Amino acid sequence: MADGQQFNIVTEGSVTTPQGFTAGGLHCGLKKTDRHDLGAIVCEVAAAAAAVYTTNVFQAAPIKVTRESLASSGRLRAVIVNSGNANACTGKQGEEDAYSMRNAFAEAIGVANEEVAVASTGVIGELLKMDKVYAGIKQLPGKLQADDQAAEDFSQAILTTDLVKKTIAVELNIDGKAVKIGGAAKGSGMIHPNMATMLGFVTTDANIEPSSLQNLLREVTNVSFNMITVDGDTSTNDMLIALASGLAGNDSLSEAHPSWGSFKAALTFVCVHLAKAIARDGEGATKLVEVRVQGAVNDEAAQAIAKTIIGSSLVKSAVFGADANWGRIIAAVGRAGQPVNPDTVDIALGDIVTLRQSSPVAFDEEQALEYLKGDTVIISVNLNMENGKAIAWGCDLTYDYVRINAAYRT
Amino acid sequence: MADGQQFNIVTEGSVTTPQGFTAGGLHCGLKKTDRHDLGAIVCEVAAAAAAVYTTNVFQAAPIKVTRESLASSGRLRAVIVNSGNANACTGKQGEEDAYSMRNAFAEAIGVANEEVAVASTGVIGELLKMDKVYAGIKQLPGKLQADDQAAEDFSQAILTTDLVKKTIAVELNIDGKAVKIGGAAKGSGMIHPNMATMLGFVTTDANIEPSSLQNLLREVTNVSFNMITVDGDTSTNDMLIALASGLAGNDSLSEAHPSWGSFKAALTFVCVHLAKAIARDGEGATKLVEVRVQGAVNDEAAQAIAKTIIGSSLVKSAVFGADANWGRIIAAVGRAGQPVNPDTVDIALGDIVTLRQSSPVAFDEEQALEYLKGDTVIISVNLNMENGKAIAWGCDLTYDYVRINAAYRT
Repeated sequence: MADGQQFNIVTEGSVTTPQGFTAGGLHCGLKKTDRHDLGAIVCEVAAAAAAVYTTNVFQAAPIKVTRESLASSGRLRAVIVNSGNANACTGKQGEEDAYSMRNAFAEAIGVANEEVAVASTGVIGELLKMDKVYAGIKQLPGKLQADDQAAEDFSQAILTTDLVKKTIAVELNIDGKAVKIGGAAKGSGMIHPNMATMLGFVTTDANIEPSSLQNLLREVTNVSFNMITVDGDTSTNDMLIALASGLAGNDSLSEAHPSWGSFKAALTFVCVHLAKAIARDGEGATKLVEVRVQGAVNDEAAQAIAKTIIGSSLVKSAVFGADANWGRIIAAVGRAGQPVNPDTVDIALGDIVTLRQSSPVAFDEEQALEYLKGDTVIISVNLNMENGKAIAWGCDLTYDYVRINAAYRT
Repeated sequence: MADGQQFNIVTEGSVTTPQGFTAGGLHCGLKKTDRHDLGAIVCEVAAAAAAVYTTNVFQAAPIKVTRESLASSGRLRAVIVNSGNANACTGKQGEEDAYSMRNAFAEAIGVANEEVAVASTGVIGELLKMDKVYAGIKQLPGKLQADDQAAEDFSQAILTTDLVKKTIAVELNIDGKAVKIGGAAKGSGMIHPNMATMLGFVTTDANIEPSSLQNLLREVTNVSFNMITVDGDTSTNDMLIALASGLAGNDSLSEAHPSWGSFKAALTFVCVHLAKAIARDGEGATKLVEVRVQGAVNDEAAQAIAKTIIGSSLVKSAVFGADANWGRIIAAVGRAGQPVNPDTVDIALGDIVTLRQSSPVAFDEEQALEYLKGDTVIISVNLNMENGKAIAWGCDLTYDYVRINAAYRT
């Protein structure tokens, strides 16, 4: 493999693809169905670790605990995750439960408490059933494997209203060594710019210091997970965590390393893949919507405009109905609070131009209908001002979104 | 009637209740159905006028024309409105059409062009069928009356996806004279903080200078129309216009007048009534949701938090499903970008307290279900910090919202 922006996708790859990682999942009883609800990723060495968290003022108890673990040495041996209960807004007891969950799993696999991170997703405001959690933690070490089935079990254990698991792995060459990056994510509701009941787990066997991994993860998050929205809500529990075992044996990665760009491109691919998978699996979604904005005064303006379009309930409903209602797109552009020249905007749905220099262009409605019926819809907006650009992802707004969210808790 | 914050509601009152105003409406053919789509309010004298407009960068042609009319002398004789077509993003031709519509109606009722305002609502990006508009304008003067039926015809002519007309009138005593304020509004989709395909018309026979009316209208809009949201979108066509004939004969109203507070309270009541009517009639809505925030660091913070809650698709879906999912409410509070103490928040649904000092309170789920099934749901949030407070209105998110917006244009 030549150096540069090159990497291969590993078929059926996931968080156990990189060297040093095992994973597993099981049903301990937090979900009412018999689906998996407790899982873990374990690294055989102390992995360099990095994480980004929800920006919500109300941060769930597991986030507090994970922050504390990560602050200890910047390295982790494991992350334990439950679904079915977010352990958020649960007061002092919830905090104690998150610590107990962490410490119990640390003991079960024989590592220090501070070497374990905790993540939770599910209903807010109810206490965790700790007897079920403890029972699950007893069985979990016996389930940990590096094979595909174990990775699959983990991916299932982190889902809530998701319909499909979201996993990926890539491989690239750094310093003559095969470096792998794997990822798994969950999320389908409460997904918005700043990561909302989204859990993401990235593993790699690359050799990289925690501080470099942290900076890179933050940068990559801004063009991947932070560019998706399902409904504009931001959860109390979002977390993206990256673990690097270093077992690939490459020279330590930093901005000075000649393969930094390649590694960044590969990690970006993994995170964008997972982010798009979350958007496509948005609650009730029937299609992925990609919004490409160019010609904005800068990238930040383009990001804000792209997110406003992708977040518009009217645009999302129109896409669901395969209605080429570009008026709603331009209305969203106009309320994004960014510099826009009202006379120079182009809009296209796929290849079908509907607006040029802010004037309507006659187009074939039948052709547009056919395009909008597809499973991926690309909306392109060119402001024709400067060179700012951005891409955002989301989904359509459907009857099923309403159905799912009208009765989530009950 | 004693002076102070006192006024009476006029039964079946509307824009023709105040002295000096006639109105009317008819079907000219802009809508595919046979519902009214062209209407006007006419004042027998040059009324003091004021208006507030959409904040969208893309402002529809009629807004440009109305701004120009209003800038001429601050006084208007009439406003002509069509539904079925927004005349937005229609380029030079659309602008010419808006002027032609204004000028044709000015000629038909024998006033100067600059004494007429124009408003449009409906589909974006299609040219007005001007032959139908002209034919309607010819008939419209013959329909203008001060009676209830004519006011009803006008109210019908401004509707799009609205299910019910929205009208109100009040009466109060100023300087020993009976002063009346009437109002009509339309709007059910694209409604958000800064007025979105919302058209509002307020008439009064109060004697007041245009500049005082303008300042007051802006102030009142901020606690009424700007505090409602249906779906977070902001139209290109919003307009709230107020006309004051002065025929009540009171001394000219200004902040120095002893009845200024009474007049303001009455106008606020009219605008809040219309705003709530719009929220309740939100596209697909089954109930009105009122969010009361108190204890914020200031009123602006309270407004932002109230609007974030009322705008949350997850909160709206839960209300539709009568699910007491207060976790989504606190998640919305936490992402509003305002100062919040995460340990001191109280939340109640009606009288049912679900969170106190940020800790869950056990409540009767059956009782909550019964309450949430009602046609009005009040969500109260107390941040227990300072004295900032605000009230916002919205509606639930339903299957019908999706149905209506998936196929609006077709």
